[in-house]
Amino acid sequence: MHRTVIIGGGFGGLYAARGLRSPDVHVTLLDRRNFHLFQPLLYQVATGALSPSDIAAPLRVLLRKQKNAEVLLAEALDLDPARRRVTLDRGEDVPYDTLVVATGATNFYFGHNEWESIAPGLKGIEDATRIRHKVLYAFEAAEREPDPDLRRRWLTFVIVGAGPTGVELSGALAEIANDALRNEFRSIRPEESRIYLLDAAPRVLTAYSEALSHSAERQLVRLGVQVRPSVRVNEIDAEGVTFAGPRGTERIESRTVLWAAGVKVSPWTEILARRAGAELTRSGQVRVDPDLSLPSNPSIFVVGDLAFYEQRGKPLPGIAPVAIQEGRYVAKVIQARLSGRTVKPFHYFDKGQLAVIGRNAGVGVIGGVEVRGWIAWFVWLFVHLMYLAQAFNRFLVFLRWGYQYATFYRGARLITGGSPAEQPVKEETLK
Amino acid sequence: MHRTVIIGGGFGGLYAARGLRSPDVHVTLLDRRNFHLFQPLLYQVATGALSPSDIAAPLRVLLRKQKNAEVLLAEALDLDPARRRVTLDRGEDVPYDTLVVATGATNFYFGHNEWESIAPGLKGIEDATRIRHKVLYAFEAAEREPDPDLRRRWLTFVIVGAGPTGVELSGALAEIANDALRNEFRSIRPEESRIYLLDAAPRVLTAYSEALSHSAERQLVRLGVQVRPSVRVNEIDAEGVTFAGPRGTERIESRTVLWAAGVKVSPWTEILARRAGAELTRSGQVRVDPDLSLPSNPSIFVVGDLAFYEQRGKPLPGIAPVAIQEGRYVAKVIQARLSGRTVKPFHYFDKGQLAVIGRNAGVGVIGGVEVRGWIAWFVWLFVHLMYLAQAFNRFLVFLRWGYQYATFYRGARLITGGSPAEQPVKEETLK
Repeated sequence: MHRTVIIGGGFGGLYAARGLRSPDVHVTLLDRRNFHLFQPLLYQVATGALSPSDIAAPLRVLLRKQKNAEVLLAEALDLDPARRRVTLDRGEDVPYDTLVVATGATNFYFGHNEWESIAPGLKGIEDATRIRHKVLYAFEAAEREPDPDLRRRWLTFVIVGAGPTGVELSGALAEIANDALRNEFRSIRPEESRIYLLDAAPRVLTAYSEALSHSAERQLVRLGVQVRPSVRVNEIDAEGVTFAGPRGTERIESRTVLWAAGVKVSPWTEILARRAGAELTRSGQVRVDPDLSLPSNPSIFVVGDLAFYEQRGKPLPGIAPVAIQEGRYVAKVIQARLSGRTVKPFHYFDKGQLAVIGRNAGVGVIGGVEVRGWIAWFVWLFVHLMYLAQAFNRFLVFLRWGYQYATFYRGARLITGGSPAEQPVKEETLK
Repeated sequence: MHRTVIIGGGFGGLYAARGLRSPDVHVTLLDRRNFHLFQPLLYQVATGALSPSDIAAPLRVLLRKQKNAEVLLAEALDLDPARRRVTLDRGEDVPYDTLVVATGATNFYFGHNEWESIAPGLKGIEDATRIRHKVLYAFEAAEREPDPDLRRRWLTFVIVGAGPTGVELSGALAEIANDALRNEFRSIRPEESRIYLLDAAPRVLTAYSEALSHSAERQLVRLGVQVRPSVRVNEIDAEGVTFAGPRGTERIESRTVLWAAGVKVSPWTEILARRAGAELTRSGQVRVDPDLSLPSNPSIFVVGDLAFYEQRGKPLPGIAPVAIQEGRYVAKVIQARLSGRTVKPFHYFDKGQLAVIGRNAGVGVIGGVEVRGWIAWFVWLFVHLMYLAQAFNRFLVFLRWGYQYATFYRGARLITGGSPAEQPVKEETLK
């Protein structure tokens, strides 16, 4: 029995586990969480459109019928490649013949870790409910606030980072302000909210062509989002953001700043470097061989955001389709090795890429063809529904989206997890 | 304009607000949360059958079309009946002509507040996700645990209190262990879990007749629940429960103890006693006049769990139908007073009462007729669906129940909110 240990139940790890169906292989999937999270829809949880359980499927359920696979709720802390063992959080060792590391990425604040408590990023379920709390609470606080200046701060939202997550968040925020909350407040008018989208790059969605990028910007502006490219954030505090750009140094007073500007790979890259001789790139990723194993240790594979793999001279991006294909590929390599076969080098097949901006709005490339507006939006909906891991979740999300499209209603608008006082706002400004 | 301030957006407060539709009345509904919670289904969130947003509806949405009503996310801290003002958490005063206090109840540990961190009760959404975390984590920890003795502690569940909440929780736990987790684990067999239901009373569900109570016990035993009546809990710690009963002093080693034994009314009763001369009963409830106002201050009404009101010599129980009818009644009284009319004393119309035990299992009284088994279960499902505040939630819950009935699948099984280390388990026992 060939023991394969997979660290991480995200796209890379889950698809590797599912690919390892050979009865000669035993699979142990380790994750700190008991669920697989469909990250591409996480911003919809953060903006109250979906409920956490809609996009999270228990790993045990997903692997229930695969009798050669077991799931352990555990954190993997260390590695001993000589003895081929992974050390878990309670000190126990798990032996492996092949190891797959798929621990993904977390938010990165470019050395300003103090910004994390003010400007949450969007990586896990808790991040999403924290952002939901912050956004919904801002409207509630504004409704109670008699001072027009403070009220404006509550109704000003700043998103730092205009990649897909930042664009999707700001579009959804605009829809909340313009439509979802309509007629619900008595003192404020949510549609007077101001939403700023900042980025260091000269345009939004730099992964796309200039034409698509400008189309995305126009669609954002139509929703009321103020796009501020080519700016560098100097400071984030509880009362706003200071940044430098073409118009000099500016400040936006805001009580709700969200972070979508950077991610960094998980600390497992350093464990791999220290213990197994992995070579890290400047971005901290792990250089892998054409079969996605470590050059220094062929029994360790690295997939997903962690892996640095160039194709046609360009590194593959940290997106779900890359992780899925890498996970599936690694499962194939492991099983081929067992039967003495060889497998061609990994090749990412780019089906396309899409970013949704709002109702009937989006941009993307499908099979090499650029799309925008409602076509991009519609294909995005369809593709994301199809990739949800569970049929019942697919059905629920489909219903929620249909209902929301018809009524603008966002069904998951709970402010939970602690009293408003836990908001990172200075006490004296609450008066 | 007659200013009515309502404190609390539970059943009593919400139905009072909805009843106050006269254009001569202005309604301000205060709540610390932005949602109305359908508490009777809370145990289904705690056991992974429903998602929090399925049973929580934003108060703003519920009152959006009622133009004379406003909602404030705020905590009411004090009262000045002479100036007719309520003081909120930021120090601001809200003036009222009529005040309705509907702040409900919280868990009560009979003086053992130290048990709260070990044995969570089930009152709010956070309680429910905390219990869900504890229950699901217990199975995960057992799967990892090599020591058979510790493993047994993880697979032993104790519910203290055999009222409706305790009965529903233990029935749902039995279904999780027997059905929902089937074939998902490799080292443990969840169906070997042991579930104990303790109560000080000689039988479960003392609000019902002896015949129904015995039927409920038989239905619980059929699910595998061990019912232990007539016991007195002496100690709860991280490793188990000690109690005295007919068999002497006993101890159950368990890492998952849930509390369903007692509630106490909110601190607002004491504010009413101190500031407005309200008379409190031994249970801490507020004695009210036949029109549910304070004898000492007719412009203050008290509804729901807070109010002590006797009918045919028996105090009304702290259940949703009583709070709903009291809320509606108070709205009628306030509007009648404005037009100089009088209203008959409050009379609770008892449509019946139901407790569900599990799939096709339950007991209840409907229109004076005792029912049990699948009829009780079916009527329970129907009634609870009908009373959910929002049509779309009704539809979603209906779908989830239907899917669960067919497949045993519980869709909302996330372990969120902090790492397993936050579990109240001594560090040295984690080895």
